[in-house]
Amino acid sequence: MSELKNDRYLRALLRQPVDKTPVWVMRQAGRYLPEYREVRAKAGDFMTLCTTPELACEVTLQPLRRFDLDAAIIFSDILTIPDAMGLGLHFVAGEGPAFTKVIENASDIAKLSVPDMEDNLGYVMDAIRLARREIDGKVPLIGFSGSPWTLACYMVEGGSSKDFSKVKGMMFDAPEQMHALLAVLADSVTAYLNAQIAAGAQAIMLFDTWGGTLSTTNYNEFSLAYMQRIVEGLTRESEGRTVPVTLFTKGGGQWLELMAQTGVDALGLDWTTDLAVARQRVGDKVSLQGNMDPCVLYASADRVEQEVASVLASFGQGATGHVFNLGHGIHPTIDPEKMKRLVDSVHRLSEPYHQ
Amino acid sequence: MSELKNDRYLRALLRQPVDKTPVWVMRQAGRYLPEYREVRAKAGDFMTLCTTPELACEVTLQPLRRFDLDAAIIFSDILTIPDAMGLGLHFVAGEGPAFTKVIENASDIAKLSVPDMEDNLGYVMDAIRLARREIDGKVPLIGFSGSPWTLACYMVEGGSSKDFSKVKGMMFDAPEQMHALLAVLADSVTAYLNAQIAAGAQAIMLFDTWGGTLSTTNYNEFSLAYMQRIVEGLTRESEGRTVPVTLFTKGGGQWLELMAQTGVDALGLDWTTDLAVARQRVGDKVSLQGNMDPCVLYASADRVEQEVASVLASFGQGATGHVFNLGHGIHPTIDPEKMKRLVDSVHRLSEPYHQ
Repeated sequence: MSELKNDRYLRALLRQPVDKTPVWVMRQAGRYLPEYREVRAKAGDFMTLCTTPELACEVTLQPLRRFDLDAAIIFSDILTIPDAMGLGLHFVAGEGPAFTKVIENASDIAKLSVPDMEDNLGYVMDAIRLARREIDGKVPLIGFSGSPWTLACYMVEGGSSKDFSKVKGMMFDAPEQMHALLAVLADSVTAYLNAQIAAGAQAIMLFDTWGGTLSTTNYNEFSLAYMQRIVEGLTRESEGRTVPVTLFTKGGGQWLELMAQTGVDALGLDWTTDLAVARQRVGDKVSLQGNMDPCVLYASADRVEQEVASVLASFGQGATGHVFNLGHGIHPTIDPEKMKRLVDSVHRLSEPYHQ
Repeated sequence: MSELKNDRYLRALLRQPVDKTPVWVMRQAGRYLPEYREVRAKAGDFMTLCTTPELACEVTLQPLRRFDLDAAIIFSDILTIPDAMGLGLHFVAGEGPAFTKVIENASDIAKLSVPDMEDNLGYVMDAIRLARREIDGKVPLIGFSGSPWTLACYMVEGGSSKDFSKVKGMMFDAPEQMHALLAVLADSVTAYLNAQIAAGAQAIMLFDTWGGTLSTTNYNEFSLAYMQRIVEGLTRESEGRTVPVTLFTKGGGQWLELMAQTGVDALGLDWTTDLAVARQRVGDKVSLQGNMDPCVLYASADRVEQEVASVLASFGQGATGHVFNLGHGIHPTIDPEKMKRLVDSVHRLSEPYHQ
């Protein structure tokens, strides 16, 4: 493996000093890029794009060619695990992900087991190996998974949901059943992320997209506890370096102290949480990733730069331990020029904060 | 006017002692009730139901006949103001509210003015007068409005939105334009709520459904500031009693201290905020309304009662200043028997907390 030329992202996650604030963007490989749409059209459907390592690798690299990013993230989906468990993931135009088989009861759950990482998810590891070769040490490569609670939401609802009636019905009415489901998911996610690390992932993100729909008590019991279990089971060193782990619960701003206690290296924040307040609350315990409102990119490029300045200022002086990102994935209709302005202004404007 | 026989709700909002925790439920007059669906079907469309005082009054009363509720809320919609401004509110099946005319630019905003309360919104005041007569002092009647930011979201997006790209685009790119829109909305909401109070509303709720989509800075500037302006302009006494005001920002759990400074009497909480923590944070400043996850009602009636017990316990002993509610509107497919169990168990289980 080539030596890593830019380790700003990894250093920032471990609260080590850097020259500039590192930046990457959730869904940086995605529909807002014309070259992505081209590959996606050629692939035919989204799952073909995910499961063909050459194509997944190609779209992983695309944003690196355009923007001065400090990390790449392997192109994949948060729902590969339930698909590998046999639920039949597919995408309905305009409606998002859906499963052919839905988890409805204890007997459905009893049939689930940890998928074989090479047989059923080997395409992800192949894509990671390929991407590492192609990136050639330019920046680190992030591996990721959905959180157990987030996977359970999609598996029980059968797809996206507005009110989470089925998965919460199960949680409230049959908590032991929900725990059985979350346990097999936690074991699967642990094995999956360790396989990604073995294949070459240099940092890990755990996306808890739907943890923020829970009460504090239920978040602790049904989401955070299983993420903690995963964090405890992860290989935290590879190729002689620490593999930092970032945990992102969308809408989880009220629970930062709890999340910081899981032993992760960093927390992802959405834009509803003030960075200065968050920094005060978590102290030296973890780094922080975030947190510009992705809708800022609908405004002019000058306004984008102004908002980048605000986010950097809110994190403040001595900016060790900050990774710049949006608070959610970049929207598909954003002009890539705005993204370029964002990335460049993070680097340019953050230098004084690191002196 | 008949004397008020049950003032538990008003007293709790003003932090005065009560014998039991009062309870009402957002959307208690709604689709989960077969008798509501019957009236709704007869009315033909939703707007006819809203604009016909006899029908609006009838559905306002329906839940009081079934359940031992401590308050009624006038049946209406949060978007009556933009409709009265000429935007043409209508409802698209399965998609929610939509406007015929969308606010796109400064010239659209310049044309807006505070609607005439009797000419354009008289149907709401008529429904309130009628409902007061029919309720006959059994419980107090709540009047309400959407917050300026929430109204602006629908007016600029033209209806519901997933990412609020248009309204946030305007906010980020043309803040002075957004402020002009919010100013006319704040003046309209103030006049509207004062007209409701004059017509007989005995308490006021301000629904800030979309404030929680903003960053702390933007929440302060574009949502909270205008709600504060409204609160300052409200008639706070009527018929010799204080008219308590409750402010509910969905997803606003991080900003309770800020909200409590607006001078409102109570804050509505969704279920993501722990009541014990909230109580500690706001102290004696305001009462708290909430905050059971509406999805609990998908579980068994016994489980509902168990969760009612948890919510009461989390508010804790000396429960002055607590109004029980869900953290969001009741879902349309809920069995009314679960609602009955909820209301009854709040009264039964809360008594010890008030001794």
